Amino acid sequence: MTDIRFILNATDGKARTGVLSTPRGDIRTPAFMPVGTAATVKAMLPGSVRETGADILLGNTYHLMLRPGAARMERLGGLHGFMNWERPILTDSGGFQVMSLSKLRKLTEEGVTFASHIDGSRHLLSPETSMEIQRQLGSDIVMCFDECTPYPCTRDEAETSMRLSMRWAERSRAAFGERPGHALFGIQQGGVHPDLREESADALKKIGFDGYAVGGLAVGEGQEMMFGTLDHCVDHLPTDRPRYLMGVGKPGDIVGAVARGIDMFDCVMPSRSGRTGQGFTPRGPVNIRNARHAEDTRPLDETCDCPCCTDYSRAYLHHVHRAQEIIASMLLTWHNLRYYQRVMEDIRAAIAGGTFDDFQARFNEEQARGDIEPL
Amino acid sequence: MTDIRFILNATDGKARTGVLSTPRGDIRTPAFMPVGTAATVKAMLPGSVRETGADILLGNTYHLMLRPGAARMERLGGLHGFMNWERPILTDSGGFQVMSLSKLRKLTEEGVTFASHIDGSRHLLSPETSMEIQRQLGSDIVMCFDECTPYPCTRDEAETSMRLSMRWAERSRAAFGERPGHALFGIQQGGVHPDLREESADALKKIGFDGYAVGGLAVGEGQEMMFGTLDHCVDHLPTDRPRYLMGVGKPGDIVGAVARGIDMFDCVMPSRSGRTGQGFTPRGPVNIRNARHAEDTRPLDETCDCPCCTDYSRAYLHHVHRAQEIIASMLLTWHNLRYYQRVMEDIRAAIAGGTFDDFQARFNEEQARGDIEPL
Repeated sequence: MTDIRFILNATDGKARTGVLSTPRGDIRTPAFMPVGTAATVKAMLPGSVRETGADILLGNTYHLMLRPGAARMERLGGLHGFMNWERPILTDSGGFQVMSLSKLRKLTEEGVTFASHIDGSRHLLSPETSMEIQRQLGSDIVMCFDECTPYPCTRDEAETSMRLSMRWAERSRAAFGERPGHALFGIQQGGVHPDLREESADALKKIGFDGYAVGGLAVGEGQEMMFGTLDHCVDHLPTDRPRYLMGVGKPGDIVGAVARGIDMFDCVMPSRSGRTGQGFTPRGPVNIRNARHAEDTRPLDETCDCPCCTDYSRAYLHHVHRAQEIIASMLLTWHNLRYYQRVMEDIRAAIAGGTFDDFQARFNEEQARGDIEPL
Repeated sequence: MTDIRFILNATDGKARTGVLSTPRGDIRTPAFMPVGTAATVKAMLPGSVRETGADILLGNTYHLMLRPGAARMERLGGLHGFMNWERPILTDSGGFQVMSLSKLRKLTEEGVTFASHIDGSRHLLSPETSMEIQRQLGSDIVMCFDECTPYPCTRDEAETSMRLSMRWAERSRAAFGERPGHALFGIQQGGVHPDLREESADALKKIGFDGYAVGGLAVGEGQEMMFGTLDHCVDHLPTDRPRYLMGVGKPGDIVGAVARGIDMFDCVMPSRSGRTGQGFTPRGPVNIRNARHAEDTRPLDETCDCPCCTDYSRAYLHHVHRAQEIIASMLLTWHNLRYYQRVMEDIRAAIAGGTFDDFQARFNEEQARGDIEPL
């Protein structure tokens, strides 16, 4: 049915490490996918993204269908060549962004009609159009079209929304058809309600997917409630398929989600934070804009091997960020993406070595210590 | 007096090619210096700037003295290490920017007092403070502090301004003192008036400098008048010292100025144009924003070896520029800087081969043909 294969190499408690193999390359799991919204990981060249250790990127269907447009992208040969990234790409379904970014939305059983936030043009996103657009983009891992359940919402709203998403999952599966070398992932919904999560997992398993995402988390419920939901909702998903927690998260969120059996992640946080002057370090985030860095000759992160940390001082990063120079975004994004990939490397090594609990305890302790003050 | 040496390898008519040797590296002339205003060539990593073929950068004293500040820069070990560029750096004197960017300026025989355009703080730029600031920055090639003569101006104004600049040149020379490994360049003024240019050159030669700049051109007088002025003003400068035409210019300006005996150039044009979507090519500038590029799979410049041209289509550049993505500035700046360096390589080869006239004729003919329309 597909030549996408998922091989688990080791488990440690619920944490797993393995490889998701695709014709465009292997994805080491647990994996973090940098976000390349509009056919670029902001402020990075693709070769540099690869150097950070990324095996796969995420592209946003909503943005790409509006600009440059899906039909145009197909005529141009697809997203990979267009953006100079020949490794795997996962695309979301557009469902999340259409609810957060577009105007004049109308949701029906058929799908969502909306006006572009760029030029006001009218579009329809439905299971069928989303599958077609993701095909035109050339996506390796396609996501089902689902409704992003609002948070907070009542139990009834969560149930109604989840059941709509399950009907859409079935239509997505049918519209996707047979596409060797390309995978389709289902998306579990059901909010924070264990029985709805179980019902959603059962519906998805009955349809059958190449991977299973946990949707509807990291939407404002907080880490404790997210972990509480993951504690039960992951157990209902098949063990022999990759599990992807969409839109997560902070480094500590990722480590905790891996402990609960998640294999894949994506988040704008490392790149977006980089552009606003926040750098991630083993001892927590650092705001480079802070005046205490103005004459600090140390690197942002003394343990890091990225160009930002090997070639520049905090004083330089402070200066170029305050001067609003593009290089500030370039360097801090590079560092943050590299930091995330180093966390993933450490996670994979800890699981393989059977020391994930120790790793997690040390990781959280170190993060809580906070940045070292200059001498 | 200095271990900066200038060796001419070949001349062809008035055009010259050679090497300006400094302790931080050789500068092949004719040379184009990318502008790194605020301790960064905008949208570029220094390693990439070097890859384009640049031997030397220009830094702006006015910007750097205000942020991060000259004393701070000295405490941090100077501009080279700070910005991760260990090759030569030329700094301007701050005289040009103080007139164009600062507020509440007051010009006296002593110098210029002004308010910072960033925070309104009060500063004095004079021959003595400019020399001190450029020393604190660690500049390899220091420029005399001069008055930028306004354009247009009367002959009397040009004369008065030039004579002030010559008195300041003498004070600059005295304040600079003896600094092995560092060079001081004088700046010829006198507007478009042959006798004033000659008087200025004589005054500078009497003082004695390691190099001589032609100032006060490319300020709105147009290419014809600029070339007309260069036709006579360069002849008064010593032949055994490098000649630097400040702030120039378009590719055709540079080729024409080389024909008139100029050895060094700097200009924001390749980097600034890159950020606004203009790409330089052998057949003239291309505005990548134009709709005709939306599905053009050809590179911006088929003859170019830079990553922008080897890895991306015009369609991609069009898309990311319109989407206001940082990568658009990164790629177009890289290309434009590489284009400028390729022109300099071609210029040097043509002079060395004694074919500069032919080169110049072909260059101008090709530029005039304009960009190739898509099929």
